[in-house]
Amino acid sequence: MSSIFFAKPNPELDLVLERDIDVPVELVWEAWTTPEHFKHWFCPKPWTVSHCELDLRPGGVFNTTMRSPEGQEFPNEGSVLAVEPLRHLVFTDALLAGFRPAPKPFMVGVLSLERIAKGTRYTAMAIHGDADTRKKHEDMGFHHGWATALDQLVEHIKATRN
Amino acid sequence: MSSIFFAKPNPELDLVLERDIDVPVELVWEAWTTPEHFKHWFCPKPWTVSHCELDLRPGGVFNTTMRSPEGQEFPNEGSVLAVEPLRHLVFTDALLAGFRPAPKPFMVGVLSLERIAKGTRYTAMAIHGDADTRKKHEDMGFHHGWATALDQLVEHIKATRN
Repeated sequence: MSSIFFAKPNPELDLVLERDIDVPVELVWEAWTTPEHFKHWFCPKPWTVSHCELDLRPGGVFNTTMRSPEGQEFPNEGSVLAVEPLRHLVFTDALLAGFRPAPKPFMVGVLSLERIAKGTRYTAMAIHGDADTRKKHEDMGFHHGWATALDQLVEHIKATRN
Repeated sequence: MSSIFFAKPNPELDLVLERDIDVPVELVWEAWTTPEHFKHWFCPKPWTVSHCELDLRPGGVFNTTMRSPEGQEFPNEGSVLAVEPLRHLVFTDALLAGFRPAPKPFMVGVLSLERIAKGTRYTAMAIHGDADTRKKHEDMGFHHGWATALDQLVEHIKATRN
Protein backbone atom coordinates (compact mmCIF):
# COMPACT_ATOMS: atom_id res chain seq x y z
CA MET A 1 0.00 0.00 0.00
CA SER A 2 1.34 3.41 -0.93
CA SER A 3 2.07 5.79 1.91
CA ILE A 4 -0.17 8.44 0.32
CA PHE A 5 -3.63 7.84 -1.11
CA PHE A 6 -4.28 9.35 -4.55
CA ALA A 7 -7.55 9.00 -6.40
CA LYS A 8 -7.60 8.49 -10.16
CA PRO A 9 -7.90 11.80 -12.02
CA ASN A 10 -11.49 12.72 -12.81
CA PRO A 11 -11.50 14.37 -16.25
CA GLU A 12 -14.53 16.47 -15.33
CA LEU A 13 -12.86 17.92 -12.26
CA ASP A 14 -9.11 17.68 -12.72
CA LEU A 15 -6.47 19.01 -15.10
CA VAL A 16 -3.37 17.00 -15.90
CA LEU A 17 -0.08 17.64 -17.66
CA GLU A 18 2.02 14.56 -18.37
CA ARG A 19 5.27 14.54 -20.30
CA ASP A 20 8.48 12.53 -20.47
CA ILE A 21 11.48 14.80 -20.08
CA ASP A 22 15.19 14.09 -20.55
CA VAL A 23 16.46 15.27 -17.20
CA PRO A 24 16.95 13.12 -14.10
CA VAL A 25 14.36 12.80 -11.35
CA GLU A 26 16.77 14.18 -8.72
CA LEU A 27 17.19 17.48 -10.54
CA VAL A 28 13.47 17.86 -11.22
CA TRP A 29 12.78 17.30 -7.54
CA GLU A 30 15.46 19.83 -6.59
CA ALA A 31 14.06 22.42 -9.03
CA TRP A 32 10.62 22.05 -7.44
CA THR A 33 11.67 22.01 -3.81
CA THR A 34 14.45 24.61 -3.63
CA PRO A 35 13.11 28.19 -3.71
CA GLU A 36 16.22 29.51 -5.48
CA HIS A 37 15.63 27.06 -8.34
CA PHE A 38 11.84 27.26 -8.22
CA LYS A 39 11.86 31.00 -8.85
CA HIS A 40 13.64 30.50 -12.15
CA TRP A 41 11.06 28.43 -13.94
CA PHE A 42 7.64 28.26 -12.23
CA CYS A 43 6.13 31.32 -13.88
CA PRO A 44 5.86 31.64 -17.68
CA LYS A 45 8.07 34.56 -18.74
CA PRO A 46 7.94 37.55 -18.90
CA TRP A 47 6.14 37.03 -15.57
CA THR A 48 8.48 36.06 -12.75
CA VAL A 49 8.36 34.55 -9.27
CA SER A 50 9.53 37.34 -6.98
CA HIS A 51 9.16 35.37 -3.75
CA CYS A 52 9.01 31.69 -2.82
CA GLU A 53 8.84 30.26 0.67
CA LEU A 54 8.70 26.50 1.06
CA ASP A 55 8.76 24.28 4.14
CA LEU A 56 8.85 20.74 2.83
CA ARG A 57 6.65 18.86 5.33
CA PRO A 58 2.92 18.40 5.99
CA GLY A 59 1.50 21.71 7.17
CA GLY A 60 4.59 23.60 5.97
CA VAL A 61 4.23 26.94 4.24
CA PHE A 62 4.21 27.10 0.45
CA ASN A 63 3.89 30.74 -0.53
CA THR A 64 4.77 32.18 -3.90
CA THR A 65 4.45 35.66 -5.33
CA MET A 66 4.15 36.21 -9.06
CA ARG A 67 5.20 39.51 -10.58
CA SER A 68 3.76 40.85 -13.81
CA PRO A 69 6.01 42.45 -16.44
CA GLU A 70 4.67 45.81 -15.18
CA GLY A 71 5.87 44.99 -11.67
CA GLN A 72 2.50 44.22 -10.05
CA GLU A 73 2.73 41.44 -7.46
CA PHE A 74 0.25 38.62 -6.89
CA PRO A 75 0.87 36.65 -3.70
CA ASN A 76 -0.41 33.07 -3.41
CA GLU A 77 -0.58 31.55 0.04
CA GLY A 78 -0.74 27.85 0.63
CA SER A 79 0.89 24.86 2.22
CA VAL A 80 2.48 21.51 1.66
CA LEU A 81 0.25 18.50 2.35
CA ALA A 82 2.42 15.47 1.65
CA VAL A 83 5.96 14.72 0.58
CA GLU A 84 7.46 11.53 -0.78
CA PRO A 85 10.98 12.57 -1.84
CA LEU A 86 11.72 12.16 -5.56
CA ARG A 87 8.19 10.80 -6.09
CA HIS A 88 5.35 13.04 -4.92
CA LEU A 89 4.75 16.57 -3.73
CA VAL A 90 1.21 17.53 -2.74
CA PHE A 91 0.40 21.19 -2.07
CA THR A 92 -2.64 23.40 -1.90
CA ASP A 93 -4.08 26.87 -1.47
CA ALA A 94 -7.08 25.35 0.34
CA LEU A 95 -5.10 25.22 3.59
CA LEU A 96 -2.54 27.71 4.85
CA ALA A 97 0.57 26.81 6.86
CA GLY A 98 -0.30 24.93 10.04
CA PHE A 99 -3.44 23.45 8.43
CA ARG A 100 -5.62 26.56 8.60
CA PRO A 101 -8.55 26.52 6.12
CA ALA A 102 -7.96 29.27 3.55
CA PRO A 103 -10.47 31.99 2.66
CA LYS A 104 -10.57 31.12 -1.06
CA PRO A 105 -9.70 27.46 -1.65
CA PHE A 106 -9.06 26.78 -5.31
CA MET A 107 -7.09 23.59 -5.88
CA VAL A 108 -4.71 20.91 -4.72
CA GLY A 109 -1.62 20.31 -6.85
CA VAL A 110 0.08 16.94 -7.14
CA LEU A 111 3.52 16.59 -8.68
CA SER A 112 4.46 13.00 -9.47
CA LEU A 113 7.82 11.89 -10.81
CA GLU A 114 8.79 8.49 -12.14
CA ARG A 115 12.23 7.40 -13.21
CA ILE A 116 12.29 6.23 -16.84
CA ALA A 117 15.10 5.34 -19.26
CA LYS A 118 14.92 8.77 -20.90
CA GLY A 119 14.94 10.62 -17.60
CA THR A 120 11.67 11.49 -15.89
CA ARG A 121 7.99 10.87 -16.46
CA TYR A 122 6.58 14.16 -15.17
CA THR A 123 2.94 14.44 -14.13
CA ALA A 124 1.41 17.58 -12.67
CA MET A 125 -2.23 17.46 -11.67
CA ALA A 126 -4.59 20.15 -10.45
CA ILE A 127 -7.47 18.75 -8.38
CA HIS A 128 -10.60 20.90 -8.12
CA GLY A 129 -13.74 20.67 -6.05
CA ASP A 130 -16.21 21.15 -8.91
CA ALA A 131 -16.47 21.45 -12.69
CA ASP A 132 -16.80 25.26 -12.61
CA THR A 133 -13.48 25.65 -10.82
CA ARG A 134 -11.82 23.27 -13.25
CA LYS A 135 -13.19 25.30 -16.19
CA LYS A 136 -12.05 28.55 -14.63
CA HIS A 137 -8.54 27.12 -14.22
CA GLU A 138 -8.56 25.88 -17.81
CA ASP A 139 -9.73 29.30 -19.05
CA MET A 140 -6.96 30.95 -17.02
CA GLY A 141 -4.55 29.03 -19.25
CA PHE A 142 -3.67 25.91 -17.28
CA HIS A 143 -2.47 23.87 -20.26
CA HIS A 144 -0.33 26.52 -21.89
CA GLY A 145 0.93 27.90 -18.58
CA TRP A 146 1.98 24.64 -16.99
CA ALA A 147 3.52 23.37 -20.27
CA THR A 148 5.52 26.58 -20.65
CA ALA A 149 6.69 26.37 -17.04
CA LEU A 150 7.80 22.79 -17.68
CA ASP A 151 9.78 23.92 -20.74
CA GLN A 152 11.43 26.51 -18.50
CA LEU A 153 12.11 23.91 -15.81
CA VAL A 154 13.92 21.61 -18.26
CA GLU A 155 15.82 24.56 -19.69
CA HIS A 156 16.82 25.74 -16.21
CA ILE A 157 18.06 22.29 -15.22
CA LYS A 158 20.11 21.94 -18.40
CA ALA A 159 21.59 25.42 -18.00
CA THR A 160 22.61 24.91 -14.38
CA ARG A 161 23.69 21.30 -14.07
CA ASN A 162 27.05 21.73 -15.76
CA MET B 1 12.62 19.61 13.27
CA SER B 2 9.27 17.87 13.62
CA SER B 3 8.04 15.92 10.63
CA ILE B 4 4.77 17.89 10.64
CA PHE B 5 4.45 21.65 11.00
CA PHE B 6 1.85 22.86 13.51
CA ALA B 7 1.18 26.50 14.23
CA LYS B 8 0.44 27.65 17.77
CA PRO B 9 -3.30 27.72 18.47
CA ASN B 10 -4.85 31.10 17.78
CA PRO B 11 -7.52 31.69 20.47
CA GLU B 12 -9.56 33.83 18.09
CA LEU B 13 -9.75 31.12 15.46
CA ASP B 14 -9.19 27.78 17.15
CA LEU B 15 -10.88 25.65 19.80
CA VAL B 16 -8.85 23.39 22.05
CA LEU B 17 -9.61 20.64 24.54
CA GLU B 18 -6.69 19.53 26.69
CA ARG B 19 -6.89 17.00 29.51
CA ASP B 20 -4.66 14.46 31.22
CA ILE B 21 -6.29 11.05 31.21
CA ASP B 22 -5.33 7.85 33.02
CA VAL B 23 -5.20 5.50 30.06
CA PRO B 24 -2.13 4.66 27.98
CA VAL B 25 -1.26 6.43 24.74
CA GLU B 26 -1.40 3.18 22.76
CA LEU B 27 -5.05 2.56 23.67
CA VAL B 28 -6.07 6.15 22.98
CA TRP B 29 -4.45 5.93 19.56
CA GLU B 30 -6.19 2.63 18.87
CA ALA B 31 -9.57 4.03 19.95
CA TRP B 32 -9.16 6.92 17.50
CA THR B 33 -7.83 4.95 14.55
CA THR B 34 -9.86 1.74 14.60
CA PRO B 35 -13.41 2.25 13.28
CA GLU B 36 -14.84 -0.47 15.53
CA HIS B 37 -13.54 1.36 18.60
CA PHE B 38 -14.15 4.85 17.21
CA LYS B 39 -17.86 4.20 16.79
CA HIS B 40 -18.23 3.51 20.50
CA TRP B 41 -17.17 6.87 21.85
CA PHE B 42 -16.87 9.66 19.25
CA CYS B 43 -20.46 10.87 19.44
CA PRO B 44 -22.03 12.06 22.73
CA LYS B 45 -24.83 9.63 23.61
CA PRO B 46 -27.69 9.15 22.91
CA TRP B 47 -26.37 10.07 19.45
CA THR B 48 -24.29 7.33 17.88
CA VAL B 49 -21.76 6.83 15.10
CA SER B 50 -23.48 4.50 12.65
CA HIS B 51 -20.65 4.42 10.12
CA CYS B 52 -16.92 5.10 10.20
CA GLU B 53 -14.47 4.63 7.36
CA LEU B 54 -10.85 5.46 7.97
CA ASP B 55 -7.76 5.06 5.79
CA LEU B 56 -4.85 6.10 7.96
CA ARG B 57 -2.57 7.90 5.49
CA PRO B 58 -2.39 11.32 3.82
CA GLY B 59 -5.28 11.62 1.38
CA GLY B 60 -7.05 8.64 2.95
CA VAL B 61 -10.78 8.71 3.53
CA PHE B 62 -12.15 9.72 6.93
CA ASN B 63 -15.92 9.50 6.73
CA THR B 64 -18.25 9.27 9.69
CA THR B 65 -22.01 9.19 9.96
CA MET B 66 -23.76 10.37 13.10
CA ARG B 67 -27.21 9.09 13.94
CA SER B 68 -29.69 11.01 16.05
CA PRO B 69 -31.76 9.26 18.73
CA GLU B 70 -34.66 9.47 16.25
CA GLY B 71 -32.63 7.57 13.65
CA GLN B 72 -31.81 10.45 11.33
CA GLU B 73 -28.34 10.15 9.78
CA PHE B 74 -25.81 12.94 9.24
CA PRO B 75 -22.86 11.91 7.08
CA ASN B 76 -19.58 13.81 7.36
CA GLU B 77 -17.06 13.38 4.57
CA GLY B 78 -13.42 14.16 4.97
CA SER B 79 -9.91 12.85 4.85
CA VAL B 80 -6.75 12.23 6.78
CA LEU B 81 -3.97 14.79 6.24
CA ALA B 82 -1.08 13.59 8.37
CA VAL B 83 -0.28 10.71 10.70
CA GLU B 84 2.46 10.34 13.27
CA PRO B 85 1.57 7.11 15.07
CA LEU B 86 0.88 7.50 18.81
CA ARG B 87 1.54 11.27 18.53
CA HIS B 88 -0.54 13.11 15.94
CA LEU B 89 -3.55 12.60 13.72
CA VAL B 90 -4.56 15.47 11.43
CA PHE B 91 -7.88 15.24 9.58
CA THR B 92 -10.28 17.58 7.85
CA ASP B 93 -13.58 18.07 6.08
CA ALA B 94 -11.94 20.72 3.87
CA LEU B 95 -10.54 18.02 1.59
CA LEU B 96 -12.14 14.74 0.59
CA ALA B 97 -10.28 11.48 0.01
CA GLY B 98 -7.59 11.85 -2.64
CA PHE B 99 -7.11 15.56 -1.78
CA ARG B 100 -10.25 16.88 -3.48
CA PRO B 101 -11.38 20.31 -2.16
CA ALA B 102 -14.71 19.84 -0.37
CA PRO B 103 -17.86 21.86 -1.10
CA LYS B 104 -18.25 23.14 2.47
CA PRO B 105 -14.90 23.28 4.27
CA PHE B 106 -15.36 23.79 7.99
CA MET B 107 -12.31 22.78 9.99
CA VAL B 108 -9.11 20.81 10.42
CA GLY B 109 -8.86 18.60 13.50
CA VAL B 110 -5.58 17.82 15.21
CA LEU B 111 -5.31 15.09 17.82
CA SER B 112 -2.06 15.19 19.80
CA LEU B 113 -1.05 12.62 22.39
CA GLU B 114 1.83 12.80 24.82
CA ARG B 115 2.95 10.10 27.21
CA ILE B 116 2.88 11.28 30.83
CA ALA B 117 3.28 9.48 34.16
CA LYS B 118 -0.49 9.33 34.68
CA GLY B 119 -1.14 8.03 31.18
CA THR B 120 -1.82 10.47 28.34
CA ARG B 121 -1.88 14.21 27.85
CA TYR B 122 -4.73 14.47 25.34
CA THR B 123 -5.09 17.55 23.16
CA ALA B 124 -7.77 17.92 20.50
CA MET B 125 -7.80 21.10 18.46
CA ALA B 126 -10.24 22.40 15.86
CA ILE B 127 -8.61 24.86 13.44
CA HIS B 128 -10.93 27.25 11.62
CA GLY B 129 -10.44 29.71 8.79
CA ASP B 130 -12.12 32.68 10.47
CA ALA B 131 -13.64 33.87 13.72
CA ASP B 132 -17.24 33.33 12.52
CA THR B 133 -16.62 29.66 11.87
CA ARG B 134 -14.95 29.27 15.25
CA LYS B 135 -17.95 30.90 16.93
CA LYS B 136 -20.38 28.72 15.00
CA HIS B 137 -18.48 25.62 16.15
CA GLU B 138 -18.46 26.87 19.75
CA ASP B 139 -22.21 27.56 19.58
CA MET B 140 -22.77 24.05 18.19
CA GLY B 141 -21.38 22.81 21.50
CA PHE B 142 -17.71 22.12 20.83
CA HIS B 143 -16.60 22.24 24.46
CA HIS B 144 -19.35 20.10 25.93
CA GLY B 145 -19.44 17.73 22.96
CA TRP B 146 -15.72 17.02 22.72
CA ALA B 147 -15.38 16.73 26.51
CA THR B 148 -18.26 14.25 26.66
CA ALA B 149 -16.77 12.25 23.80
CA LEU B 150 -13.47 12.15 25.69
CA ASP B 151 -15.26 10.86 28.82
CA GLN B 152 -16.77 8.15 26.63
CA LEU B 153 -13.39 7.36 25.09
CA VAL B 154 -11.79 6.81 28.51
CA GLU B 155 -14.79 4.77 29.63
CA HIS B 156 -14.66 2.64 26.46
CA ILE B 157 -10.94 1.96 26.89
CA LYS B 158 -11.39 0.95 30.52
CA ALA B 159 -14.35 -1.29 29.71
CA THR B 160 -12.60 -3.13 26.87
CA ARG B 161 -8.96 -3.43 27.94
CA ASN B 162 -9.48 -6.19 30.45
